[in-house]
Amino acid sequence: MASIAAQTLFKLFFTLFSAFFIEINGEFSRQSINMSTKRMEKITRLHFYFHDIADGKHPTAMQIIRLPNKTATSFGTTFMVDDPLTEKPKPTSKLVGRAQGIYAFASQSDLWLLMVMSFAFSEGIYNGSAISILGQNAVLDAVREMSIVGGSGIFRFARGYAL
Amino acid sequence: MASIAAQTLFKLFFTLFSAFFIEINGEFSRQSINMSTKRMEKITRLHFYFHDIADGKHPTAMQIIRLPNKTATSFGTTFMVDDPLTEKPKPTSKLVGRAQGIYAFASQSDLWLLMVMSFAFSEGIYNGSAISILGQNAVLDAVREMSIVGGSGIFRFARGYAL
Amino acid sequence: MASIAAQTLFKLFFTLFSAFFIEINGEFSRQSINMSTKRMEKITRLHFYFHDIADGKHPTAMQIIRLPNKTATSFGTTFMVDDPLTEKPKPTSKLVGRAQGIYAFASQSDLWLLMVMSFAFSEGIYNGSAISILGQNAVLDAVREMSIVGGSGIFRFARGYAL
Repeated sequence: MASIAAQTLFKLFFTLFSAFFIEINGEFSRQSINMSTKRMEKITRLHFYFHDIADGKHPTAMQIIRLPNKTATSFGTTFMVDDPLTEKPKPTSKLVGRAQGIYAFASQSDLWLLMVMSFAFSEGIYNGSAISILGQNAVLDAVREMSIVGGSGIFRFARGYAL
Repeated sequence: MASIAAQTLFKLFFTLFSAFFIEINGEFSRQSINMSTKRMEKITRLHFYFHDIADGKHPTAMQIIRLPNKTATSFGTTFMVDDPLTEKPKPTSKLVGRAQGIYAFASQSDLWLLMVMSFAFSEGIYNGSAISILGQNAVLDAVREMSIVGGSGIFRFARGYAL
Repeated sequence: MASIAAQTLFKLFFTLFSAFFIEINGEFSRQSINMSTKRMEKITRLHFYFHDIADGKHPTAMQIIRLPNKTATSFGTTFMVDDPLTEKPKPTSKLVGRAQGIYAFASQSDLWLLMVMSFAFSEGIYNGSAISILGQNAVLDAVREMSIVGGSGIFRFARGYAL
Protein backbone atom coordinates (compact mmCIF):
# COMPACT_ATOMS: atom_id res chain seq x y z
CA MET A 1 0.00 0.00 0.00
CA ALA A 2 1.24 3.45 -0.84
CA SER A 3 1.95 5.79 2.03
CA ILE A 4 -0.62 8.42 2.89
CA ALA A 5 0.56 11.18 5.17
CA ALA A 6 -1.79 14.08 4.93
CA GLN A 7 -1.77 17.30 6.84
CA THR A 8 -4.79 19.48 6.57
CA LEU A 9 -5.81 22.80 7.98
CA PHE A 10 -9.31 22.71 9.32
CA LYS A 11 -11.33 25.76 10.08
CA LEU A 12 -14.54 24.96 11.83
CA PHE A 13 -17.40 27.37 11.94
CA PHE A 14 -20.48 26.58 13.86
CA THR A 15 -23.46 27.98 15.55
CA LEU A 16 -24.82 27.09 18.92
CA PHE A 17 -28.43 27.65 19.79
CA SER A 18 -29.51 28.26 23.32
CA ALA A 19 -32.05 25.79 24.58
CA PHE A 20 -34.05 25.40 27.76
CA PHE A 21 -35.13 21.99 28.93
CA ILE A 22 -37.91 20.93 31.20
CA GLU A 23 -37.36 17.52 32.72
CA ILE A 24 -40.12 15.52 34.33
CA ASN A 25 -39.10 12.18 35.77
CA GLY A 26 -40.42 8.67 35.62
CA GLU A 27 -41.89 8.08 32.20
CA PHE A 28 -40.76 7.42 28.69
CA SER A 29 -41.43 10.87 27.29
CA ARG A 30 -42.29 14.46 28.10
CA GLN A 31 -42.69 17.40 25.79
CA SER A 32 -42.75 21.11 26.27
CA ILE A 33 -43.32 23.98 23.90
CA ASN A 34 -41.18 27.06 23.85
CA MET A 35 -42.14 30.17 21.87
CA SER A 36 -39.20 32.45 21.49
CA THR A 37 -38.93 35.78 19.74
CA LYS A 38 -35.23 36.09 20.35
CA ARG A 39 -32.61 33.47 19.82
CA MET A 40 -29.12 33.70 21.09
CA GLU A 41 -26.51 32.26 18.85
CA LYS A 42 -22.92 31.75 19.68
CA ILE A 43 -20.51 31.44 16.80
CA THR A 44 -17.24 29.67 17.37
CA ARG A 45 -14.35 29.46 14.97
CA LEU A 46 -11.75 26.80 15.57
CA HIS A 47 -8.55 26.57 13.58
CA PHE A 48 -6.26 23.55 13.70
CA TYR A 49 -4.26 21.03 11.71
CA PHE A 50 -5.20 17.44 11.05
CA HIS A 51 -2.47 14.78 10.77
CA ASP A 52 -3.27 11.46 9.13
CA ILE A 53 -0.46 8.89 8.90
CA ALA A 54 -1.29 5.57 7.23
CA ASP A 55 2.22 4.16 7.23
CA GLY A 56 5.43 3.95 9.24
CA LYS A 57 6.11 3.00 12.83
CA HIS A 58 3.26 4.90 14.42
CA PRO A 59 0.36 4.99 11.98
CA THR A 60 -2.74 6.92 13.05
CA ALA A 61 -4.94 5.25 10.41
CA MET A 62 -5.69 1.56 10.05
CA GLN A 63 -7.21 0.03 6.93
CA ILE A 64 -10.33 -1.85 8.01
CA ILE A 65 -11.76 -2.78 4.60
CA ARG A 66 -9.41 -4.12 1.93
CA LEU A 67 -11.02 -5.22 -1.32
CA PRO A 68 -9.70 -8.02 -3.53
CA ASN A 69 -9.57 -5.86 -6.67
CA LYS A 70 -8.40 -2.33 -5.99
CA THR A 71 -9.64 0.24 -8.50
CA ALA A 72 -7.93 3.48 -9.55
CA THR A 73 -9.91 5.50 -7.01
CA SER A 74 -9.71 2.79 -4.28
CA PHE A 75 -13.54 2.70 -4.29
CA GLY A 76 -14.75 0.94 -1.13
CA THR A 77 -11.42 1.01 0.73
CA THR A 78 -12.05 2.13 4.30
CA PHE A 79 -9.85 3.33 7.17
CA MET A 80 -10.38 3.80 10.89
CA VAL A 81 -8.40 6.78 12.19
CA ASP A 82 -7.36 8.26 15.51
CA ASP A 83 -5.59 11.36 14.18
CA PRO A 84 -4.03 14.15 16.24
CA LEU A 85 -5.31 17.69 15.78
CA THR A 86 -2.68 20.33 16.49
CA GLU A 87 -2.53 24.08 16.86
CA LYS A 88 0.15 24.60 14.20
CA PRO A 89 1.15 22.74 11.03
CA LYS A 90 3.98 20.91 12.81
CA PRO A 91 2.79 17.53 14.18
CA THR A 92 4.79 18.18 17.35
CA SER A 93 2.96 21.45 18.05
CA LYS A 94 0.37 21.66 20.83
CA LEU A 95 -2.28 18.91 20.68
CA VAL A 96 -5.80 20.40 20.72
CA GLY A 97 -7.79 17.21 20.11
CA ARG A 98 -8.19 14.01 18.14
CA ALA A 99 -10.23 13.09 15.04
CA GLN A 100 -11.66 9.62 15.55
CA GLY A 101 -13.75 7.68 13.07
CA ILE A 102 -13.93 6.39 9.55
CA TYR A 103 -13.01 7.61 6.10
CA ALA A 104 -13.83 5.63 3.00
CA PHE A 105 -13.10 6.08 -0.69
CA ALA A 106 -16.61 6.70 -1.99
CA SER A 107 -16.24 7.61 -5.67
CA GLN A 108 -15.71 5.51 -8.78
CA SER A 109 -14.19 8.46 -10.68
CA ASP A 110 -12.51 10.80 -8.17
CA LEU A 111 -10.46 10.70 -5.00
CA TRP A 112 -13.38 11.56 -2.75
CA LEU A 113 -13.60 10.41 0.82
CA LEU A 114 -16.72 9.97 2.89
CA MET A 115 -15.81 11.18 6.38
CA VAL A 116 -17.79 9.90 9.41
CA MET A 117 -15.93 11.19 12.44
CA SER A 118 -15.96 12.76 15.81
CA PHE A 119 -13.49 15.56 16.56
CA ALA A 120 -12.89 15.36 20.31
CA PHE A 121 -11.19 18.42 21.74
CA SER A 122 -8.89 18.47 24.74
CA GLU A 123 -7.79 22.11 24.87
CA GLY A 124 -9.05 24.76 27.31
CA ILE A 125 -12.81 25.19 27.61
CA TYR A 126 -13.29 22.73 24.73
CA ASN A 127 -11.81 19.86 26.75
CA GLY A 128 -14.34 17.02 26.78
CA SER A 129 -16.47 18.48 24.00
CA ALA A 130 -16.76 17.06 20.52
CA ILE A 131 -18.27 17.75 17.14
CA SER A 132 -19.65 15.19 14.70
CA ILE A 133 -18.63 15.34 11.03
CA LEU A 134 -20.44 13.69 8.14
CA GLY A 135 -19.55 14.66 4.62
CA GLN A 136 -17.37 14.44 1.61
CA ASN A 137 -13.71 15.30 1.45
CA ALA A 138 -12.46 16.03 -2.07
CA VAL A 139 -8.88 15.10 -1.25
CA LEU A 140 -7.21 16.85 -4.17
CA ASP A 141 -9.14 20.13 -3.98
CA ALA A 142 -7.48 23.17 -2.46
CA VAL A 143 -10.60 24.05 -0.49
CA ARG A 144 -12.66 21.22 0.90
CA GLU A 145 -15.76 21.49 2.95
CA MET A 146 -17.44 19.01 5.24
CA SER A 147 -20.51 19.54 7.31
CA ILE A 148 -20.65 19.53 11.10
CA VAL A 149 -23.87 17.74 11.91
CA GLY A 150 -23.91 17.89 15.69
CA GLY A 151 -21.87 18.02 18.83
CA SER A 152 -21.60 17.26 22.50
CA GLY A 153 -20.48 19.12 25.62
CA ILE A 154 -20.36 22.84 24.90
CA PHE A 155 -21.08 22.00 21.26
CA ARG A 156 -24.54 20.56 21.98
CA PHE A 157 -26.87 21.46 19.10
CA ALA A 158 -23.95 22.67 17.04
CA ARG A 159 -24.12 22.83 13.29
CA GLY A 160 -21.61 24.24 10.88
CA TYR A 161 -18.93 23.43 8.42
CA ALA A 162 -15.28 22.53 8.29
CA LEU A 163 -12.96 23.57 5.48
CA MET B 1 -13.97 -12.75 21.98
CA ALA B 2 -15.09 -11.65 25.41
CA SER B 3 -18.76 -11.17 26.02
CA ILE B 4 -20.19 -7.67 25.91
CA ALA B 5 -23.59 -7.24 27.47
CA ALA B 6 -24.21 -3.61 28.11
CA GLN B 7 -27.27 -1.94 29.48
CA THR B 8 -27.41 1.78 29.24
CA LEU B 9 -29.87 4.41 30.21
CA PHE B 10 -30.39 6.91 27.45
CA LYS B 11 -31.99 10.23 27.94
CA LEU B 12 -32.63 12.00 24.69
CA PHE B 13 -33.26 15.69 24.57
CA PHE B 14 -34.11 17.35 21.34
CA THR B 15 -35.69 20.31 19.78
CA LEU B 16 -38.09 20.37 16.90
CA PHE B 17 -38.45 23.41 14.74
CA SER B 18 -41.65 24.16 12.95
CA ALA B 19 -41.26 24.49 9.20
CA PHE B 20 -43.57 25.44 6.38
CA PHE B 21 -43.00 24.06 2.92
CA ILE B 22 -44.12 25.32 -0.43
CA GLU B 23 -44.14 22.62 -3.05
CA ILE B 24 -44.25 23.37 -6.75
CA ASN B 25 -44.36 20.35 -9.01
CA GLY B 26 -42.53 19.27 -12.10
CA GLU B 27 -38.94 20.45 -11.83
CA PHE B 28 -35.75 19.58 -10.07
CA SER B 29 -35.82 22.40 -7.53
CA ARG B 30 -37.89 25.17 -5.99
CA GLN B 31 -36.99 27.56 -3.23
CA SER B 32 -38.97 29.81 -0.97
CA ILE B 33 -37.95 32.30 1.66
CA ASN B 34 -39.61 32.50 5.03
CA MET B 35 -39.00 35.40 7.43
CA SER B 36 -40.14 34.54 10.89
CA THR B 37 -40.02 36.57 14.05
CA LYS B 38 -41.35 33.79 16.20
CA ARG B 39 -40.23 30.23 16.21
CA MET B 40 -42.06 27.44 17.89
CA GLU B 41 -39.91 24.82 19.46
CA LYS B 42 -41.05 21.60 20.91
CA ILE B 43 -38.76 19.93 23.39
CA THR B 44 -39.09 16.22 23.89
CA ARG B 45 -37.36 14.17 26.51
CA LEU B 46 -37.22 10.42 26.02
CA HIS B 47 -35.93 8.06 28.64
CA PHE B 48 -35.17 4.43 27.95
CA TYR B 49 -32.68 1.58 28.34
CA PHE B 50 -30.41 0.23 25.65
CA HIS B 51 -29.52 -3.49 25.59
CA ASP B 52 -26.52 -4.65 23.61
CA ILE B 53 -25.73 -8.38 23.66
CA ALA B 54 -22.69 -9.53 21.66
CA ASP B 55 -22.71 -13.13 22.82
CA GLY B 56 -24.97 -16.03 23.70
CA LYS B 57 -27.88 -17.66 21.89
CA HIS B 58 -29.61 -14.47 20.78
CA PRO B 59 -26.96 -11.81 20.18
CA THR B 60 -28.20 -8.37 19.15
CA ALA B 61 -24.76 -7.31 17.88
CA MET B 62 -22.75 -8.91 15.08
CA GLN B 63 -19.09 -8.23 14.52
CA ILE B 64 -18.69 -7.09 10.91
CA ILE B 65 -15.02 -6.08 10.92
CA ARG B 66 -12.48 -8.36 12.59
CA LEU B 67 -8.86 -7.33 12.30
CA PRO B 68 -5.93 -9.77 12.17
CA ASN B 69 -4.08 -8.14 15.09
CA LYS B 70 -6.36 -7.01 17.85
CA THR B 71 -5.00 -4.12 19.93
CA ALA B 72 -5.71 -3.34 23.58
CA THR B 73 -8.48 -0.91 22.65
CA SER B 74 -9.81 -3.09 19.76
CA PHE B 75 -9.09 -0.16 17.41
CA GLY B 76 -10.95 -0.71 14.12
CA THR B 77 -13.22 -3.50 15.36
CA THR B 78 -16.77 -2.82 14.17
CA PHE B 79 -20.20 -4.20 15.05
CA MET B 80 -23.62 -3.99 13.42
CA VAL B 81 -26.39 -3.91 16.04
CA ASP B 82 -30.14 -4.26 16.22
CA ASP B 83 -30.58 -3.59 19.93
CA PRO B 84 -33.85 -3.39 21.85
CA LEU B 85 -34.72 -0.16 23.68
CA THR B 86 -36.92 -0.73 26.70
CA GLU B 87 -38.86 1.38 29.16
CA LYS B 88 -37.19 -0.04 32.27
CA PRO B 89 -33.76 -1.54 33.01
CA LYS B 90 -35.06 -5.11 32.68
CA PRO B 91 -34.66 -6.41 29.10
CA THR B 92 -38.11 -8.01 29.35
CA SER B 93 -39.79 -4.68 30.14
CA LYS B 94 -41.88 -2.89 27.52
CA LEU B 95 -40.12 -2.46 24.17
CA VAL B 96 -40.17 1.18 23.04
CA GLY B 97 -37.94 0.88 19.96
CA ARG B 98 -34.75 -0.46 18.43
CA ALA B 99 -31.26 0.98 17.95
CA GLN B 100 -29.99 -0.08 14.54
CA GLY B 101 -26.61 0.70 13.06
CA ILE B 102 -22.91 0.55 13.62
CA TYR B 103 -20.50 1.04 16.47
CA ALA B 104 -16.76 0.90 16.03
CA PHE B 105 -13.80 1.08 18.38
CA ALA B 106 -12.28 4.37 17.25
CA SER B 107 -9.47 5.15 19.68
CA GLN B 108 -5.91 3.87 19.94
CA SER B 109 -5.71 4.74 23.64
CA ASP B 110 -9.22 4.51 25.17
CA LEU B 111 -12.38 2.43 24.95
CA TRP B 112 -14.22 4.93 22.79
CA LEU B 113 -16.88 3.92 20.32
CA LEU B 114 -17.99 5.81 17.25
CA MET B 115 -21.76 5.36 17.10
CA VAL B 116 -23.59 5.72 13.75
CA MET B 117 -27.14 4.63 14.40
CA SER B 118 -30.80 5.16 13.97
CA PHE B 119 -33.07 4.84 17.00
CA ALA B 120 -36.44 3.74 15.58
CA PHE B 121 -39.30 4.07 18.04
CA SER B 122 -42.40 1.89 18.13
CA GLU B 123 -44.24 3.22 21.17
CA GLY B 124 -47.30 5.49 21.13
CA ILE B 125 -47.09 8.66 19.06
CA TYR B 126 -43.41 7.93 18.37
CA ASN B 127 -44.24 4.76 16.43
CA GLY B 128 -42.64 5.01 13.00
CA SER B 129 -40.42 7.93 13.92
CA ALA B 130 -36.66 7.77 14.32
CA ILE B 131 -33.68 9.82 15.34
CA SER B 132 -30.19 9.68 13.87
CA ILE B 133 -27.17 9.47 16.17
CA LEU B 134 -23.58 10.27 15.24
CA GLY B 135 -21.02 10.65 17.96
CA GLN B 136 -18.63 9.22 20.42
CA ASN B 137 -19.48 6.90 23.27
CA ALA B 138 -16.87 6.84 26.04
CA VAL B 139 -17.81 3.35 27.23
CA LEU B 140 -16.24 3.53 30.66
CA ASP B 141 -17.45 7.01 31.63
CA ALA B 142 -20.36 7.37 34.02
CA VAL B 143 -21.96 10.07 31.87
CA ARG B 144 -21.66 9.76 28.13
CA GLU B 145 -23.07 12.07 25.56
CA MET B 146 -23.77 11.55 21.88
CA SER B 147 -25.30 13.99 19.48
CA ILE B 148 -28.63 13.60 17.75
CA VAL B 149 -28.06 14.92 14.27
CA GLY B 150 -31.48 14.52 12.71
CA GLY B 151 -34.68 12.57 12.64
CA SER B 152 -37.66 11.40 10.69
CA GLY B 153 -41.42 11.26 11.23
CA ILE B 154 -42.36 13.50 14.14
CA PHE B 155 -38.66 14.04 14.73
CA ARG B 156 -38.08 15.78 11.39
CA PHE B 157 -35.49 18.56 11.85
CA ALA B 158 -34.68 17.29 15.31
CA ARG B 159 -31.39 18.03 16.96
CA GLY B 160 -30.28 17.25 20.44
CA TYR B 161 -28.21 14.99 22.58
CA ALA B 162 -28.33 11.60 24.21
CA LEU B 163 -26.68 10.82 27.52
CA MET C 1 -25.92 -12.74 -4.61
CA ALA C 2 -29.26 -11.72 -6.00
CA SER C 3 -29.39 -8.63 -8.15
CA ILE C 4 -30.52 -5.36 -6.63
CA ALA C 5 -31.47 -2.66 -9.08
CA ALA C 6 -33.45 -0.03 -7.31
CA GLN C 7 -34.81 3.21 -8.61
CA THR C 8 -36.15 5.62 -6.10
CA LEU C 9 -37.70 9.02 -6.23
CA PHE C 10 -36.18 11.31 -3.67
CA LYS C 11 -37.76 14.52 -2.61
CA LEU C 12 -35.51 16.56 -0.41
CA PHE C 13 -36.83 19.30 1.74
CA PHE C 14 -34.52 21.42 3.74
CA THR C 15 -34.10 24.66 5.47
CA LEU C 16 -31.13 26.94 5.31
CA PHE C 17 -30.41 29.35 8.09
CA SER C 18 -28.59 32.58 7.48
CA ALA C 19 -25.46 32.95 9.55
CA PHE C 20 -22.95 35.71 10.05
CA PHE C 21 -19.40 34.90 10.96
CA ILE C 22 -16.76 36.97 12.62
CA GLU C 23 -13.28 35.72 11.92
CA ILE C 24 -10.30 36.74 13.97
CA ASN C 25 -6.98 35.33 12.83
CA GLY C 26 -4.09 33.64 14.50
CA GLU C 27 -5.44 31.52 17.36
CA PHE C 28 -7.19 28.27 17.96
CA SER C 29 -10.62 29.69 18.72
CA ARG C 30 -12.81 32.78 18.72
CA GLN C 31 -16.43 33.17 19.66
CA SER C 32 -19.04 35.80 19.02
CA ILE C 33 -22.61 36.18 20.15
CA ASN C 34 -25.41 37.14 17.83
CA MET C 35 -28.87 38.11 19.10
CA SER C 36 -31.39 37.97 16.33
CA THR C 37 -35.09 38.71 16.39
CA LYS C 38 -35.60 37.74 12.79
CA ARG C 39 -34.34 34.67 11.07
CA MET C 40 -34.31 34.23 7.37
CA GLU C 41 -34.97 30.73 6.19
CA LYS C 42 -34.68 29.48 2.70
CA ILE C 43 -36.59 26.36 1.85
CA THR C 44 -35.42 24.28 -1.05
CA ARG C 45 -37.20 21.33 -2.55
CA LEU C 46 -35.22 19.01 -4.75
CA HIS C 47 -36.79 16.19 -6.70
CA PHE C 48 -34.79 13.48 -8.39
CA TYR C 49 -34.37 9.76 -8.98
CA PHE C 50 -31.80 7.53 -7.36
CA HIS C 51 -30.35 4.58 -9.31
CA ASP C 52 -28.62 1.79 -7.44
CA ILE C 53 -27.24 -1.10 -9.49
CA ALA C 54 -25.53 -3.90 -7.57
CA ASP C 55 -25.07 -6.26 -10.50
CA GLY C 56 -24.25 -6.37 -14.21
CA LYS C 57 -21.45 -4.87 -16.22
CA HIS C 58 -21.48 -1.43 -14.66
CA PRO C 59 -22.50 -1.78 -11.03
CA THR C 60 -22.81 1.42 -9.01
CA ALA C 61 -22.70 -0.44 -5.69
CA MET C 62 -19.88 -2.62 -4.36
CA GLN C 63 -20.30 -5.00 -1.44
CA ILE C 64 -17.62 -4.12 1.12
CA ILE C 65 -18.70 -6.39 3.99
CA ARG C 66 -19.66 -9.98 3.25
CA LEU C 67 -20.48 -12.15 6.25
CA PRO C 68 -19.84 -15.91 6.41
CA ASN C 69 -23.43 -16.76 7.37
CA LYS C 70 -25.98 -14.66 5.54
CA THR C 71 -29.29 -14.23 7.39
CA ALA C 72 -32.74 -13.68 5.89
CA THR C 73 -32.45 -9.91 6.27
CA SER C 74 -28.73 -9.82 5.27
CA PHE C 75 -28.00 -8.27 8.69
CA GLY C 76 -24.51 -6.73 8.64
CA THR C 77 -24.04 -6.81 4.86
CA THR C 78 -22.65 -3.46 3.72
CA PHE C 79 -22.27 -1.73 0.35
CA MET C 80 -20.32 1.28 -0.85
CA VAL C 81 -22.21 3.14 -3.57
CA ASP C 82 -21.56 5.83 -6.15
CA ASP C 83 -25.07 6.10 -7.56
CA PRO C 84 -26.30 8.51 -10.22
CA LEU C 85 -29.12 10.91 -9.36
CA THR C 86 -31.19 11.88 -12.37
CA GLU C 87 -33.94 14.36 -13.17
CA LYS C 88 -36.41 11.77 -14.48
CA PRO C 89 -37.03 8.08 -13.74
CA LYS C 90 -35.01 6.98 -16.78
CA PRO C 91 -31.36 6.33 -15.87
CA THR C 92 -30.30 8.03 -19.11
CA SER C 93 -32.12 11.27 -18.23
CA LYS C 94 -30.16 14.34 -17.15
CA LEU C 95 -27.65 13.68 -14.35
CA VAL C 96 -28.17 16.07 -11.43
CA GLY C 97 -25.70 14.57 -8.97
CA ARG C 98 -24.31 11.46 -7.31
CA ALA C 99 -25.10 9.67 -4.03
CA GLN C 100 -21.84 8.50 -2.51
CA GLY C 101 -21.45 6.52 0.68
CA ILE C 102 -22.52 3.45 2.54
CA TYR C 103 -25.69 1.50 3.08
CA ALA C 104 -25.86 -1.45 5.41
CA PHE C 105 -28.55 -3.97 6.29
CA ALA C 106 -29.20 -3.01 9.90
CA SER C 107 -32.18 -5.07 11.05
CA GLN C 108 -32.50 -8.68 12.20
CA SER C 109 -36.19 -8.79 11.28
CA ASP C 110 -36.82 -6.37 8.38
CA LEU C 111 -35.21 -5.15 5.19
CA TRP C 112 -34.02 -1.90 6.69
CA LEU C 113 -30.94 -0.10 5.51
CA LEU C 114 -28.82 2.32 7.45
CA MET C 115 -27.82 5.04 4.95
CA VAL C 116 -24.68 7.12 5.58
CA MET C 117 -24.18 9.16 2.43
CA SER C 118 -23.39 12.39 0.77
CA PHE C 119 -25.55 13.57 -2.13
CA ALA C 120 -23.24 15.72 -4.26
CA PHE C 121 -25.07 17.81 -6.82
CA SER C 122 -23.70 18.90 -10.19
CA GLU C 123 -26.64 20.75 -11.71
CA GLY C 124 -27.06 24.54 -12.00
CA ILE C 125 -26.55 26.58 -8.85
CA TYR C 126 -26.28 23.34 -6.83
CA ASN C 127 -23.08 22.32 -8.64
CA GLY C 128 -20.41 21.68 -6.02
CA SER C 129 -22.84 21.61 -3.11
CA ALA C 130 -23.77 18.51 -1.14
CA ILE C 131 -26.06 17.29 1.59
CA SER C 132 -25.30 14.67 4.22
CA ILE C 133 -27.80 11.88 4.88
CA LEU C 134 -27.93 9.69 7.98
CA GLY C 135 -30.95 7.55 8.58
CA GLN C 136 -32.96 4.48 7.99
CA ASN C 137 -34.37 3.35 4.67
CA ALA C 138 -37.27 0.91 5.00
CA VAL C 139 -36.69 -0.64 1.57
CA LEU C 140 -40.10 -2.23 1.14
CA ASP C 141 -42.20 0.71 2.34
CA ALA C 142 -43.99 2.89 -0.20
CA VAL C 143 -42.93 6.06 1.58
CA ARG C 144 -39.52 6.14 3.18
CA GLU C 145 -37.96 8.98 5.00
CA MET C 146 -34.36 9.72 5.83
CA SER C 147 -32.99 12.73 7.59
CA ILE C 148 -30.68 15.31 6.08
CA VAL C 149 -28.24 16.14 8.84
CA GLY C 150 -26.08 18.77 7.21
CA GLY C 151 -24.65 20.12 4.01
CA SER C 152 -21.90 21.99 2.28
CA GLY C 153 -21.68 24.77 -0.31
CA ILE C 154 -25.04 26.49 -0.62
CA PHE C 155 -26.42 23.84 1.71
CA ARG C 156 -24.29 24.88 4.68
CA PHE C 157 -26.31 24.49 7.87
CA ALA C 158 -29.01 22.61 6.02
CA ARG C 159 -31.37 20.27 7.78
CA GLY C 160 -34.34 18.46 6.40
CA TYR C 161 -35.62 15.18 5.18
CA ALA C 162 -35.64 13.00 2.12
CA LEU C 163 -38.55 10.80 1.13
